[in-house]
Amino acid sequence: MKTSIATVSLSGDLRSKLEAIAKAGFDGVEIFENDFLVFDESPRQVGQMVRDHGLEISLFQPFRDFEGMPEPLRSRTFDRAERKFDLMQEMGTDLVLVCSNVSPAALGGLDRAAADFRELGERAARRDLRVGYEALAWGRHINDHRDAWEVVRRADHANVGLILDSFHTLARKIDVNSIRSIPKEKIFIIQLADAPLIDMDLLYWSRHFRNMPGEGDLPVLEFMRAVAATGYDGYLSLEIFNDQFRGGSATAISVDGQRSLLYLGDQVRRTEPDIALPVPEMPPRSGVEGIAFIEFTIDESEAPQFEALIRTLGFRRAARHKTKSVTVFQQGDIRLVINTESRGFANSSYLVHGTSAYAMGLLVDDARATHRRALALGAETFAQPVDEGEIEMPAVHGVGGGIVYFLDRHSDLGSIWDVEFDPVDDLSATSAGLSSIDHIAQTMHYDELLTWLLFYTSLLEAHKTPLVDIIDPSGIVRSQVVENAAGSLRITMNGAENRNTLAGRFIADTFGSGIQHLAFKTDDIFRTADVLAAGGFVSLAISPNYYDDLEARFGLDPHFTERLKAHNILYDKDERGEYFQLYSPTFSGGFFFEIVERRGYRGYGAANAIFRIAALRKFLEPADMPRA
Amino acid sequence: MKTSIATVSLSGDLRSKLEAIAKAGFDGVEIFENDFLVFDESPRQVGQMVRDHGLEISLFQPFRDFEGMPEPLRSRTFDRAERKFDLMQEMGTDLVLVCSNVSPAALGGLDRAAADFRELGERAARRDLRVGYEALAWGRHINDHRDAWEVVRRADHANVGLILDSFHTLARKIDVNSIRSIPKEKIFIIQLADAPLIDMDLLYWSRHFRNMPGEGDLPVLEFMRAVAATGYDGYLSLEIFNDQFRGGSATAISVDGQRSLLYLGDQVRRTEPDIALPVPEMPPRSGVEGIAFIEFTIDESEAPQFEALIRTLGFRRAARHKTKSVTVFQQGDIRLVINTESRGFANSSYLVHGTSAYAMGLLVDDARATHRRALALGAETFAQPVDEGEIEMPAVHGVGGGIVYFLDRHSDLGSIWDVEFDPVDDLSATSAGLSSIDHIAQTMHYDELLTWLLFYTSLLEAHKTPLVDIIDPSGIVRSQVVENAAGSLRITMNGAENRNTLAGRFIADTFGSGIQHLAFKTDDIFRTADVLAAGGFVSLAISPNYYDDLEARFGLDPHFTERLKAHNILYDKDERGEYFQLYSPTFSGGFFFEIVERRGYRGYGAANAIFRIAALRKFLEPADMPRA
Repeated sequence: MKTSIATVSLSGDLRSKLEAIAKAGFDGVEIFENDFLVFDESPRQVGQMVRDHGLEISLFQPFRDFEGMPEPLRSRTFDRAERKFDLMQEMGTDLVLVCSNVSPAALGGLDRAAADFRELGERAARRDLRVGYEALAWGRHINDHRDAWEVVRRADHANVGLILDSFHTLARKIDVNSIRSIPKEKIFIIQLADAPLIDMDLLYWSRHFRNMPGEGDLPVLEFMRAVAATGYDGYLSLEIFNDQFRGGSATAISVDGQRSLLYLGDQVRRTEPDIALPVPEMPPRSGVEGIAFIEFTIDESEAPQFEALIRTLGFRRAARHKTKSVTVFQQGDIRLVINTESRGFANSSYLVHGTSAYAMGLLVDDARATHRRALALGAETFAQPVDEGEIEMPAVHGVGGGIVYFLDRHSDLGSIWDVEFDPVDDLSATSAGLSSIDHIAQTMHYDELLTWLLFYTSLLEAHKTPLVDIIDPSGIVRSQVVENAAGSLRITMNGAENRNTLAGRFIADTFGSGIQHLAFKTDDIFRTADVLAAGGFVSLAISPNYYDDLEARFGLDPHFTERLKAHNILYDKDERGEYFQLYSPTFSGGFFFEIVERRGYRGYGAANAIFRIAALRKFLEPADMPRA
Repeated sequence: MKTSIATVSLSGDLRSKLEAIAKAGFDGVEIFENDFLVFDESPRQVGQMVRDHGLEISLFQPFRDFEGMPEPLRSRTFDRAERKFDLMQEMGTDLVLVCSNVSPAALGGLDRAAADFRELGERAARRDLRVGYEALAWGRHINDHRDAWEVVRRADHANVGLILDSFHTLARKIDVNSIRSIPKEKIFIIQLADAPLIDMDLLYWSRHFRNMPGEGDLPVLEFMRAVAATGYDGYLSLEIFNDQFRGGSATAISVDGQRSLLYLGDQVRRTEPDIALPVPEMPPRSGVEGIAFIEFTIDESEAPQFEALIRTLGFRRAARHKTKSVTVFQQGDIRLVINTESRGFANSSYLVHGTSAYAMGLLVDDARATHRRALALGAETFAQPVDEGEIEMPAVHGVGGGIVYFLDRHSDLGSIWDVEFDPVDDLSATSAGLSSIDHIAQTMHYDELLTWLLFYTSLLEAHKTPLVDIIDPSGIVRSQVVENAAGSLRITMNGAENRNTLAGRFIADTFGSGIQHLAFKTDDIFRTADVLAAGGFVSLAISPNYYDDLEARFGLDPHFTERLKAHNILYDKDERGEYFQLYSPTFSGGFFFEIVERRGYRGYGAANAIFRIAALRKFLEPADMPRA
């Protein structure tokens, strides 16, 4: 499967864009004209530079305001086209994108447009070039791919074809099945982009909000299945206009782009098996049973304090690594692995100091197949030297440079706890009834949120929930969740837009992006709260005003509200059920724990987030401290 | 005139918000319920805290999903209202905002809603409270202030009134004249917000894009004139939801807010002279004849190099300050003041070192009246010790802490050049035909763009042009222009969103926000270019690819294109005329000069911006340098 990306999708100058694109594994690149124009090399040199990077120019674009022009504009437009044909031949590409005319001077009429394209096709043919016509969603007369296709059909010239762009078709909610009957040889290239569903002016939406297939809400898969059904086997090419991407790292955006196309191709292959598109084979998305463990790296000096904290939460020391300074604390199905090794990755210099939940183990159907899929999708493998008798656990780099391990029950990995660890008989802790990890919360720059959303959803049998804006007192945090149908995998991802927000501070001042909190599940929050209190656990103090409002809002029994308030338990209710949340204060500057009980409820208490954030802020900045 | 602002408009906790609001001069504050709920003090203490800041609670808000509920929801809603009434009495406010119901459970019907409000009014009256009804633009049944007013009219209760919000009315393009016939005593409070004109979902627009009156594109003045015509003389209260403001400084946003209301009031007073609204008197907006001078602060060591550069641009030394180390270079009407004093503000420690265009002098109709208006609108005055025989020039702090001086021709300020300076006979430079300052370009964080837009437009007879996005290779720079009708004042303002853009680097690495470049006007760009070249001036090198495209795009004569290319002159053309631009490389890391010729053209060559930026970047980062 040939993949390509338009230079306009990335930040930087042309040379650095090409480097990033080549490194991410693309086969081709669309040269966006302005990227060439601002560059100092000649077209011939630019072409050579592209080929030196092992890339092909999939498309030169855009040529604007062409069809339907009255004279004398028409003649000048053809002259302009000839100049661009010169340039394309110098550069070494045979395909140009002509987007539908938006000029107020343009005249309508399919036959007029078809005649213009026939002539352009003739001129292109003399030079062995090809012209692709794309309907912009805001084109003056042509803004629907069905009309563009009719123009191409009537132009009836071998060198004139259609260019389909998922954004333009899907933004206008045009039935994608209209694509299935187009002859594949008339589709010159496929451009792909997704976008979040926000109802707004199409041009503004397109110019600022596009993202990679799978990162947004448009049915790009349905679009691509229709394309594949024609027998199309050419380039899948990304054309993404996005403010965030323009400000981000060209390398990271390129990796995401390549991943999005491979994942899209893989989905098409599984749903339209007879396609001509040569999609690379890879293992299927992996089912996830749950989070097998969370590994913390801790300085020796901080370990006693941290262990004392998790003991108050009802965890007991369950196992000790046979050769390494690694201990497992357990409660129910939850395993917290405490790593105080001074060698190895867990304490390598590129992680900041202090306590950090730097790794998670995912219990999947087939760990090594999952790892192969991750690598096929461009993830970076992670391996450490393994001592004799130890099992090498497959792993990749995840959010903020943290590690994602894969385990399963069927392979040798299922016995890792028995093989590498010795059990410890620890009777000092009383269980608080915590049974499993309900969810983990990862915090990152908003820039990275889409990256990790795509990472998880392309790798695992999981879906994303709609984006929620959480109003932090100092700004907005964008929150989105990856979860599986069983609810056994739940990862909430918080993207901080500025460093004044609590999430932003977590990134800037403490750990860098990573796991900011862990939520454990209980079946009886009040019993758990009693056990915790008896053990000396101090919960995060919530404003009393919250409880007065809660009682009025849900019409709660005052005795019930009193119980919530006594334990600083947050509450939510929706049509599905009830939700209870209890927080620890932050530990070592940023990390904290949550305990939840779900009574049918499936959300994450978004309405309570501001109360949690305000309480954490208050904990971090007592009122008598001076303020900025 | 009583001004107020909703706590939701600002970032921070309640106490810091109140501090900022009080400091900016507001009389009242709307308590947004969540700001209270996350706060740990009781309602009584919060009320006291507000009053301790010298503020009044203008409104408690919002009370949601009230009218039209079927039983048993209706009873619960009234219970909920009684709880909020308790809270309001504790807090010490008599007015609550009820926004129109958005619940799917709500039933329609004006009479049903009116009956609910009559009952609520009865309950409120028992406690001497008042209820204001506001139509949300996305309310389920009521989304138009005319319907909300009909509900209030039918409720027919002294304690039930209307709340008008400019956003909700103007977003739906409702005729504001419908407000003029509402009895003033039934308008309980006026909420004000503006917004940029972007066609999108109303709720999304409202939640993310609102800004201060005068900062956006809505006809808020027309709205306010209609309100004033009723005889309304109560609070003007800001309710602004804006992602940027939430991440910004509460103090700066509060100052902007107060300024926006005072300016709005002032405009209403001048257009509806018989109003009851007690708007404070201030001098009118000032006409501007032009930019009288730009003052540079320069280290002694860099001064010779800088003076050599401006000499190649055709400036000659024209005057020297009688007592200070300050020199004036002149060409046509352009005065560049070079300040190498080591004492005084120009070189005070809070300005960064190097060369900085830190001050501008505006030639206005009446300098001291302009200064009074600026102070009335909350600007910070600037004064330096004045020696005997010197004239004190009125000034305020401007963008990035730079200084804006005011001069005029009528007062003693008109003779300042003669009084304080000695002429110098300098024959060493040849004039390059530069006649005046065409425009100055100020660069700032995007956060501050609206601040300075409001500053200039509220103070001077000038208007703003629509926002333009400039695609820097590393992100987006938002650009907006303040200009007067004569074209003698033109300030382009560039807001950088991230520090990777060229504008962002200017702010982060060199001067802080301020004047990034100066554009001089010539009547003959080619003659000017010849003189400059003869004097050794090296212009900023533009990519040859630019000229090939230019020729094709505009159908230019190849000889003409060659002349442009030979001098690195950028070119643009629109229906009004032609535009020529020539740039210097950057000086001392960031600042640069531009020379322009206008042949009827009124814009700023936005299409050329990416070429200028790419060329400057190349100048700053030669191709053989390693890249990130």
